[in-house]
Amino acid sequence: MSNKTIPESQTQFLRFATPEKPFRFTSGMVMDDLTLAYETHGKLNEDKSNAILVFHALSGSQHASGVCRHVPNTGDRWTEDCQQGWWSLFIGPGKALDTQKFFVICANYLGGCYGSSGPASLNPKTGQPYGPEFPQVSTADVVRSQALLLDHFGIDKLHAVMGASVGGLLTLNFATLFPERVRLVVSIASGQRTTVLSRLGVFEQVMAIENDPHFKGGKYYDSDPPAYGLALARMISHKTFVHLDAIERRARGDVIQRDDQLSWYRVGHNVESYMLHQGKKFVKRFDANTYLRICDMWLRFDPLKDAGVEDHGALFAISRRAGHHWLVFSIDSDFCFYPEEQAELVRWLEQADVSSMHITVHSDKGHDSFLLEPELYTPHLSYTLRRGVQLNDAWDHDAASPGI
Amino acid sequence: MSNKTIPESQTQFLRFATPEKPFRFTSGMVMDDLTLAYETHGKLNEDKSNAILVFHALSGSQHASGVCRHVPNTGDRWTEDCQQGWWSLFIGPGKALDTQKFFVICANYLGGCYGSSGPASLNPKTGQPYGPEFPQVSTADVVRSQALLLDHFGIDKLHAVMGASVGGLLTLNFATLFPERVRLVVSIASGQRTTVLSRLGVFEQVMAIENDPHFKGGKYYDSDPPAYGLALARMISHKTFVHLDAIERRARGDVIQRDDQLSWYRVGHNVESYMLHQGKKFVKRFDANTYLRICDMWLRFDPLKDAGVEDHGALFAISRRAGHHWLVFSIDSDFCFYPEEQAELVRWLEQADVSSMHITVHSDKGHDSFLLEPELYTPHLSYTLRRGVQLNDAWDHDAASPGI
Repeated sequence: MSNKTIPESQTQFLRFATPEKPFRFTSGMVMDDLTLAYETHGKLNEDKSNAILVFHALSGSQHASGVCRHVPNTGDRWTEDCQQGWWSLFIGPGKALDTQKFFVICANYLGGCYGSSGPASLNPKTGQPYGPEFPQVSTADVVRSQALLLDHFGIDKLHAVMGASVGGLLTLNFATLFPERVRLVVSIASGQRTTVLSRLGVFEQVMAIENDPHFKGGKYYDSDPPAYGLALARMISHKTFVHLDAIERRARGDVIQRDDQLSWYRVGHNVESYMLHQGKKFVKRFDANTYLRICDMWLRFDPLKDAGVEDHGALFAISRRAGHHWLVFSIDSDFCFYPEEQAELVRWLEQADVSSMHITVHSDKGHDSFLLEPELYTPHLSYTLRRGVQLNDAWDHDAASPGI
Repeated sequence: MSNKTIPESQTQFLRFATPEKPFRFTSGMVMDDLTLAYETHGKLNEDKSNAILVFHALSGSQHASGVCRHVPNTGDRWTEDCQQGWWSLFIGPGKALDTQKFFVICANYLGGCYGSSGPASLNPKTGQPYGPEFPQVSTADVVRSQALLLDHFGIDKLHAVMGASVGGLLTLNFATLFPERVRLVVSIASGQRTTVLSRLGVFEQVMAIENDPHFKGGKYYDSDPPAYGLALARMISHKTFVHLDAIERRARGDVIQRDDQLSWYRVGHNVESYMLHQGKKFVKRFDANTYLRICDMWLRFDPLKDAGVEDHGALFAISRRAGHHWLVFSIDSDFCFYPEEQAELVRWLEQADVSSMHITVHSDKGHDSFLLEPELYTPHLSYTLRRGVQLNDAWDHDAASPGI
């Protein structure tokens, strides 16, 4: 496909915190100058009922579809890897998220490094990047800031909220913090809590970054960034994204870089070179402080506390009362978010009598499948999104069953 | 059990490289002053036919059984954690490795930090620790140095060679490098090659150590050691040793250390505190340069090249020709060495028509089971070891079958 046929897209910006309307973080900190970077695709209809909010995954951005050559205020992080929309295979005319019917919004997380306010942003009071002074960001902060973006568009109720991976955790958080603002909830390759295994892996990544000699507590913007620490963090997570067979296959083409940075150890296998290359490539496009903040929000993810409830029964009762319908996808070969995690989510939904459908897709691509294989998701996604339009109402659990 | 009933054991030392008899490493480097630290249990019989050589695992030592309060030349690394023999539940009178019948030998790996020559040892030419100048150590170097220890005892042929985890890889290496020197081969919770998943995890550990600001290319003996890098490495491996449910259970008792070293991140969950505690405890008893060397030998493990053969068929044909019998244990909940790895080993053995038995034990303890649950291993271990004595000959594949 030549670039001519790929639509160009543009990041837009909303300053959502001002001195008149400051933003209070979960931590209690208050700021009055905060911006979200976001992208939209399709047109908002007159009654503003066709909007879909998409949460990106850990290292994603607002740039969900098409081609975007440049985003202001991203330094040299907007590399070629960023320029293709991460969900272009899913968002567009006639695609799963059909932009002829729907208005799709995707915003860079608060605390991010692709245009939303974050640790790498300049503090207007000092003219220097915030660094470690930027507040701790919770998933609820991300969700609340994006609800303000919906206010900006005058959207009271989303047709759907969705996300994959960490984006799925934010989706759950949104649906239970703003239950009246959403009709359909789609969770892909995600879960409903931070499991022990996720916690161990994410905590390792925190340590990898913070122990880098260049990290300096997060004050590294006027010197070398903690490149190898961030690369190691990415390597730790990358192995859970990509199926091991694929890592082995892809690595075969890599030349062994025997004299790579490691000081005593000499890289001796192309799988090692491949992973190191993935890590180093990532470092060029991401900010370590942002990475830490997203790890932190994942480790502290607590939708129960955010919704002010005691247990999962009460949490998902919120969804039932709001008349949500959930579409939940598991990937059988996923070992970032294991299929069992989505099964647990579905059990909670069923116990709370929430309308839901659970689909397991069979893939040899692991977690990454949700980026690469639209054919596995599109039929159910577009069917569910379109039915929601026709009914234009809360989902009827019993009526929906026979047709499926 | 009071300490009175636990036998004391003592580390012994053998200088196996001298100016008259220097040792050539696989790398080509030659040294003339190298020592192995080892322990023995039981008595060598007159015809020297009752010896069992045990290889320890990654962070183990020669101290396999009983209590040992002190080992010379280990600095302050011989902590309380080291003082109980790591396989005391398996080695002793009437136990799986019955010291009333067998003479059990266990030596600290060459390159180790518990008394064998390694990076932390003093270079007699400089009076300083070798550090990064100590040669690269291969599994074949470990195996060859221990064969010299057998020579010292005048043992031509071992009754059995065995090891768990990385010790199982060394066992395979020994059996195929010195096929005529062994009768029975026991591999526990191990495999026969470095899998992609192992490689990724071990390479992460290398990076964690080398990127520590205190590592300084391995020259850290006159200053702070790379403590957090080594702790992170241990955390990465520890999660593959212990079943996740056990980590969660053990962590419940831990108090959250919110103000632990991490600079920006604040530890927020007892699983994180527990892992950090495990990592820090490990740092007190281990040397980072030794850790790196063992990672390196694992990553470069290549028994085919060592044995001078082209493929696995040829490798295991060595075992058939020597008349070995293999006893192979898998642990169903192991996710350090997955049970599939031992199954692959057994397929190779069967294809090469090597006498073998494969036992899968069912445990909820994960990889650690081989340290903790002697009752799962003892019946087959002692049966096989005793039958080997009665036959006192190569194992007869067909004759053995009916009785099993």
